[in-house]
Amino acid sequence: MAESDKTSIGIDFGGTSVKLGVCRGDELLVTDEPIPTTQFHGPAALIGEMAARVAKLRATYPAICAIGVGVPGLVDFDHGFVHELTNVPGWKHVPLKAILGEKTGLPVLVENDANAMTYAEFRHGAARGLKNVIGMTLGTGIGGGLVLDGKMFRGSGFVAGEIGQMSIDYNGKPGHYGNLGALEKYTGNQQIAEHAVLRYSEAGIEKDMAECTPKKIADAAQAGDDIARQIWAEVADWLGTAISSIAWLLNPDAFVIGGGVAQAGDLIFNPLKNKVQSMLSTVVWERLQILPARFSNEAGIIGNAALAADAV
Amino acid sequence: MAESDKTSIGIDFGGTSVKLGVCRGDELLVTDEPIPTTQFHGPAALIGEMAARVAKLRATYPAICAIGVGVPGLVDFDHGFVHELTNVPGWKHVPLKAILGEKTGLPVLVENDANAMTYAEFRHGAARGLKNVIGMTLGTGIGGGLVLDGKMFRGSGFVAGEIGQMSIDYNGKPGHYGNLGALEKYTGNQQIAEHAVLRYSEAGIEKDMAECTPKKIADAAQAGDDIARQIWAEVADWLGTAISSIAWLLNPDAFVIGGGVAQAGDLIFNPLKNKVQSMLSTVVWERLQILPARFSNEAGIIGNAALAADAV
Repeated sequence: MAESDKTSIGIDFGGTSVKLGVCRGDELLVTDEPIPTTQFHGPAALIGEMAARVAKLRATYPAICAIGVGVPGLVDFDHGFVHELTNVPGWKHVPLKAILGEKTGLPVLVENDANAMTYAEFRHGAARGLKNVIGMTLGTGIGGGLVLDGKMFRGSGFVAGEIGQMSIDYNGKPGHYGNLGALEKYTGNQQIAEHAVLRYSEAGIEKDMAECTPKKIADAAQAGDDIARQIWAEVADWLGTAISSIAWLLNPDAFVIGGGVAQAGDLIFNPLKNKVQSMLSTVVWERLQILPARFSNEAGIIGNAALAADAV
Repeated sequence: MAESDKTSIGIDFGGTSVKLGVCRGDELLVTDEPIPTTQFHGPAALIGEMAARVAKLRATYPAICAIGVGVPGLVDFDHGFVHELTNVPGWKHVPLKAILGEKTGLPVLVENDANAMTYAEFRHGAARGLKNVIGMTLGTGIGGGLVLDGKMFRGSGFVAGEIGQMSIDYNGKPGHYGNLGALEKYTGNQQIAEHAVLRYSEAGIEKDMAECTPKKIADAAQAGDDIARQIWAEVADWLGTAISSIAWLLNPDAFVIGGGVAQAGDLIFNPLKNKVQSMLSTVVWERLQILPARFSNEAGIIGNAALAADAV
């Protein structure tokens, strides 16, 4: 794919703030001051503020040709319609593309945030130049996005990529939807902490949840704590099972993994790679890369800007 | 997608015979006498016979504009190169597209057989008119194919769709590649029979493997045998776990299921649908169909002919 040098705005709509930035190709030219969502009551006011920010940025960057907005919730991609943002009061049935497009006169693309993160890594990040890329963010839940044959794949109802809901045990723990063995009930941050408390307790060591965040377990493992290493090996088994199933199904070039747990670095990536290799044929494994994400906080801005630029 | 009225040849290369047919749009105009693979020593002789058959069919159907060949093994789709057919002696590193193309002067497309089956159902069968379709064949092993955004999706190494190798239990039975919890180690024909022998034995009923084929268990369940019904419910749990994981990942319009086990009809489809629904959100479930395949023996001919026609 040819490198785009179009200038576009990426907007990353989070639970507490809206972040904006201007990108040209793979360059993040500037980020604007975040908009605190709580200061604006309802979608109309907040979209008005977004439009004002866009106008201000266009004064400095007149080449801006499109806007991409990523939201933490369910969207109708074709219509740029937000069904619901569960963490942002009042955001239900909002025709975001239509309103923001009318206010700015620019083409607007509305995307799910996990898709935008994946697209950022595919176009400008760790998976640049590859064709089939699976993005995963590990945090409270587990999000995912799919770039297939060089294009964002969204599924029939625009909800593809729900990796955290995939089952790793047909008889396992129920997920949010009653789905037995849901991956995120094993490898969500909270579940890893609970599991760690249990493992330490079995060894006669009492720790509370706050002492068992992924970061603290990673640090303990780094310092040579065998129980912490054992916990990471188990996390790698669970994650690796889901990753290998996706690899059998999609035969991709790469998984790009971001989010808190991924920051444990080689401690999680090495056992994870070993596990995935042990679950695959040579043909599937030999072209597969398992990569840490290049972008973190700026992934949403970059991914949404790239999606918007590539669509015009 | 507009209906093609192109005339093309589909060739279904099986372990013991090669079947040929001529298709126009969704019509199978004629099938030729199968070629027994054992009567031809090595690829050159067999490809020569295929070319002779093609010449004969073109005498009757001069509008034939392309040939699609489906093979039971690993192919390089871009080059129409057969890496290896494990069940056909001598078929290793065969440039099938180049040789058959040169002998016939027609465009040749070489595809994996599970992909061809899926494409047949997508273009002319149970999933006609849908955009995202997952094909599954249940037999000794479990094959799969993916049509995504209206196109065959093959993966980076052309081996996407290995549904039988996906894990349904991170701590489960090892598959052919050492992959723990491989679906086909639960729902392959042989494994279903073994499981049935065990279930009957637990109930004090001694049966051998030959009495526990999928067909015989289906018949027993139909006749009201509670143990047989229980066995189907378990098969539905295993299959349904894999199907729901794929649905979370790809948010497709339909699964189309063919092969021996699928012929158990409602006995397997009803518990399977219930299981899948219990594992999904409303958004994913409400646009999902789980359908029996329309085609059986002729799926390969129709799918390969359609793939070839759509490519020219």
